[in-house]
Amino acid sequence: MSTALVKPVLYSYFRSSCSWRVRIALALKGIAYDQEPVNLLKDGGQQFSTEFQAVNPMQQVPALKIDGIILSQSLAIIQYLEETRPNPRLLPQDLKKRAQARMISDHIVSGIQPLQNLTFLKQVGEKMEWAQHNITCGFKALEQILQHTAGRYCIGDEVSMADLCLVPQVHNAERFKVDLAPYPTITRINKALLELEAFQVSHPCRQPDTPAELRT
Amino acid sequence: MSTALVKPVLYSYFRSSCSWRVRIALALKGIAYDQEPVNLLKDGGQQFSTEFQAVNPMQQVPALKIDGIILSQSLAIIQYLEETRPNPRLLPQDLKKRAQARMISDHIVSGIQPLQNLTFLKQVGEKMEWAQHNITCGFKALEQILQHTAGRYCIGDEVSMADLCLVPQVHNAERFKVDLAPYPTITRINKALLELEAFQVSHPCRQPDTPAELRT
Repeated sequence: MSTALVKPVLYSYFRSSCSWRVRIALALKGIAYDQEPVNLLKDGGQQFSTEFQAVNPMQQVPALKIDGIILSQSLAIIQYLEETRPNPRLLPQDLKKRAQARMISDHIVSGIQPLQNLTFLKQVGEKMEWAQHNITCGFKALEQILQHTAGRYCIGDEVSMADLCLVPQVHNAERFKVDLAPYPTITRINKALLELEAFQVSHPCRQPDTPAELRT
Repeated sequence: MSTALVKPVLYSYFRSSCSWRVRIALALKGIAYDQEPVNLLKDGGQQFSTEFQAVNPMQQVPALKIDGIILSQSLAIIQYLEETRPNPRLLPQDLKKRAQARMISDHIVSGIQPLQNLTFLKQVGEKMEWAQHNITCGFKALEQILQHTAGRYCIGDEVSMADLCLVPQVHNAERFKVDLAPYPTITRINKALLELEAFQVSHPCRQPDTPAELRT
């Protein structure tokens, strides 16, 4: 059977912001997929199980089984989808704008998220103020960068990979009770994106593994 | 004057592993550039100066002034170079291999490096054992992944973006005195890459801002 006929499987956790990025990409591109929930808290973290380690040695979600391979790392997955299923595109056609979309994505994915996630919090001793501090520093820079790149969304008026990173990061900021008032551009873009169906169906409060009390 | 005729300027710090990634890309592609050193330790960190913040609001190196724009984030910069100056290529032609190159790059850039850099060490209270632990966890996964992807280099026998991330990360591991014996594939690839001229001329011990006592 051709691998293209096999439905992709996304290993995901409802609350993982990295998983949400990929769920948005799959929704925007209209790719049907199955979800395999991996609970990052239960059983000491199901991502550490022998079973899941065989899927992804990085012991992280998301991982995507697709076209006969298993990929991990959200941006690598999104860019693979972009190169194999180009419509609608998630990277602008203009090369400078593409670079800016990647720059904003990397800023969030490697500059903010790792310094506020579970691994980090365990190591600093659950110091929420460091997580808040790191998000705040990151958002301060992002707000300035968006002055130069944004239209309705992060890069002009077309949804791009940067937007797929922005919305889950703003959601995390809200969970950490970061004051978003100093970031009017971030807040405006986030609001506009949350109006789109792909961002709604992929939302953490609406996944197969979302606990009943968190569903909306 | 056409922007293509203006030599790119790389804002860099000799010891920054993220800067080294970009220096390797520039060397491999034979792009002449000027360096503007930014000392991450001097004056409380020159990346925090008002002057540098105007260059890069993210207050980080590397940043590259090129073609009339300023880019930051090493992978965004490398992929911009790849799309505008495609020879020699740093991402494989095969789409699955491209995805694997990006996956390994992201694993290092967002999964390992942020959990051992200066910002992190300040926040955990200079606990070197956390930095070592994070590098070790990351290398354990990487060693497994490379079993499936590597040839002479990370992805088969062609140098790719993943290799540009690997060598600076191994250098950091050595600085943190991580035992590399459990990672024979990582060690073998690192050694093969360090034989290439582009990895040598871009090495931290050979930059304009390398202190005399560290030069070799």
